[in-house]
Amino acid sequence: MKFTINRATFINKLNDVLRAISSKTTIPILTGIKLVVSDEDVTLTGSDADITIESVLSNSDEKMELEIASAGSIVLPARFFSEIIKKLPDKQVTIEVTDGFQTQITSGTASFTINGQDANNYPHLPEIDSENTISLAGDVLKEVIGQTVLAVSTQESRPILTGIHLILSENQLVAVATDSHRLAQRKINLPTAVSQTYNVIIPGKSLQELSRMIDDNRKEIQLRIADNQVLFLLGDTLFYSRLLEGNYPDTTRLIPDTSDTTVELNASVFLAAIERASLLSHESRNNVVKLNIQPEEQLAEISGNSPDVGNVEEQISVSTVAGQPVEISFNPDYMKDALRSFGQSEIKISFTSALRPFTLVPTENEDNFIQLITPVRTY
Amino acid sequence: MKFTINRATFINKLNDVLRAISSKTTIPILTGIKLVVSDEDVTLTGSDADITIESVLSNSDEKMELEIASAGSIVLPARFFSEIIKKLPDKQVTIEVTDGFQTQITSGTASFTINGQDANNYPHLPEIDSENTISLAGDVLKEVIGQTVLAVSTQESRPILTGIHLILSENQLVAVATDSHRLAQRKINLPTAVSQTYNVIIPGKSLQELSRMIDDNRKEIQLRIADNQVLFLLGDTLFYSRLLEGNYPDTTRLIPDTSDTTVELNASVFLAAIERASLLSHESRNNVVKLNIQPEEQLAEISGNSPDVGNVEEQISVSTVAGQPVEISFNPDYMKDALRSFGQSEIKISFTSALRPFTLVPTENEDNFIQLITPVRTY
Repeated sequence: MKFTINRATFINKLNDVLRAISSKTTIPILTGIKLVVSDEDVTLTGSDADITIESVLSNSDEKMELEIASAGSIVLPARFFSEIIKKLPDKQVTIEVTDGFQTQITSGTASFTINGQDANNYPHLPEIDSENTISLAGDVLKEVIGQTVLAVSTQESRPILTGIHLILSENQLVAVATDSHRLAQRKINLPTAVSQTYNVIIPGKSLQELSRMIDDNRKEIQLRIADNQVLFLLGDTLFYSRLLEGNYPDTTRLIPDTSDTTVELNASVFLAAIERASLLSHESRNNVVKLNIQPEEQLAEISGNSPDVGNVEEQISVSTVAGQPVEISFNPDYMKDALRSFGQSEIKISFTSALRPFTLVPTENEDNFIQLITPVRTY
Repeated sequence: MKFTINRATFINKLNDVLRAISSKTTIPILTGIKLVVSDEDVTLTGSDADITIESVLSNSDEKMELEIASAGSIVLPARFFSEIIKKLPDKQVTIEVTDGFQTQITSGTASFTINGQDANNYPHLPEIDSENTISLAGDVLKEVIGQTVLAVSTQESRPILTGIHLILSENQLVAVATDSHRLAQRKINLPTAVSQTYNVIIPGKSLQELSRMIDDNRKEIQLRIADNQVLFLLGDTLFYSRLLEGNYPDTTRLIPDTSDTTVELNASVFLAAIERASLLSHESRNNVVKLNIQPEEQLAEISGNSPDVGNVEEQISVSTVAGQPVEISFNPDYMKDALRSFGQSEIKISFTSALRPFTLVPTENEDNFIQLITPVRTY
């Protein structure tokens, strides 16, 4: 195995694959990166058993400047190998398996020889049928992930809630996440109808990692779903994630369809006020902020109190306040996450009563995106 | 106590004082920031007992927009108070001690009330005689600190070596630091001769913190030295540090005055090569890089070897090589620190033998700046 490649371009691809590699893995060979060289291309593979990322490097990308002298394969220690590649002096780097699994890395006058492992011992990737491929716009997929992943559970006690529930049927994709204290749901229309209905739960961590790989140039992403794996194709890079097994709870009945009080306000202005109030709530034991809404006075006020440190109150600038007066307490960190997912938008918050979940939706598009938060009982 | 001030300007001064405040202090009141309001100005004080920083805020700086309603003093929880100030909504902030030690912080429609402490319980600052004031250029002081602090010991076993030794006499300041494995010495000429000789040891940590406060606009810094304290004046900000007690070892006889081998090369080019080689040495137990110099062949080569991970070798581009052949092993981290202190300069490295300390000096100014490194015995 021997090839020469443009170092800067190689580093880019290496960084993609490194996302999948964890130093904490219990399978020693997965701390390595697999290089497979054929007559035409070089395939890099990294995996933590949950996520696998594969990148194919070829001269279809001119910047690769790839010259293959001989085919072969090797597994190299991922972190150490990538640090070496990043620090080398020259524009080009040559990687050659010399003696057994010893690998020589040369660039300019610098030469490293490092010990590799037999690529045959690296776990095999699942085969995923290419028949049913679903196309998604890169920016839309990234938005859907960003708007729902915040509500994914980080507790391992109910593993199913650590995933995002994706339902694809006909022309629609629905993404839902809940940790049982809050819920986020986003619907999008698909450019072309899917041939069958899919109902899968993808680990939130996988989708978050995928999201980081979607840059602004990534126009289209293909999605393929198998029994226990999902594959996202981003050009020459393949992103595999295992699926979570089990039934996702029915979340449709959690979302209230009536309300007694509504407030319309700017999400980013409200976020700044909640961030201030949470400074105080974080110092106290119960981490709760109270919102007091008085429609007759067109008033919305937040407050927090902690006997040890002090108290805070702030009147919130609102567009409209309608319905019944309500006083409701909530975890400000849930509110911050929810508000951030709306960016600079005008939003509508709808309340039923002090102990029932309340919802946040964008004023301009109430049906396709919803955040739900369960209040905290303070008495 | 009540005053209103421009929030952005207040945050700048607050950040300076916060540098001195540690959450790890064993003296609870030092987790607080002291505010003392007189009829004309507001003084902020922060301290970790080693370093004390005091900043005087007045309308001599127009951007302060300071309005004092009543004098007084208070100690407020530093981290919490500064987080609140930074998150407030309005351009102005009003701080008022209301009831006992309760303090109200208002800005726009937001209002915090937090519990403070009696400022009379805050430790008093040492008095430092203003008679003997030494002037130093800000950029030069910053350079002297940066070039010597790297050699300060981080081990508490010999506390005296955790400081930088400053000797001021007549027109010269000499700064020396050593951790007994390496040494850094810098000399500068003073603009005006000092009236007496000073011989003090300032904790390296203090000078590093001071250095971070010296920005490019800081033309002049005044220095005042007392028995066990030193005071640096940066305009309206006062930086106090305690001095280390004891005798600093005599370092003059450690610096060799002859050499058998010299190499001239570019510091930043050599640094890049040492950084590469240290990737490998860091993976092995003894963390050593070898330098092999063959003057007849005008060759300088570094190499590293670790049976577990592999090996590295690189030929170094040099300007001149003269004298006897030498093979020397050293800790690459010491070499990296030393090389960084020369920036992009051309330097001369002088060796006596494989086990004797070697020196690095800038080619253009051999007398005023020297780095010394003790080699590692590898057999």
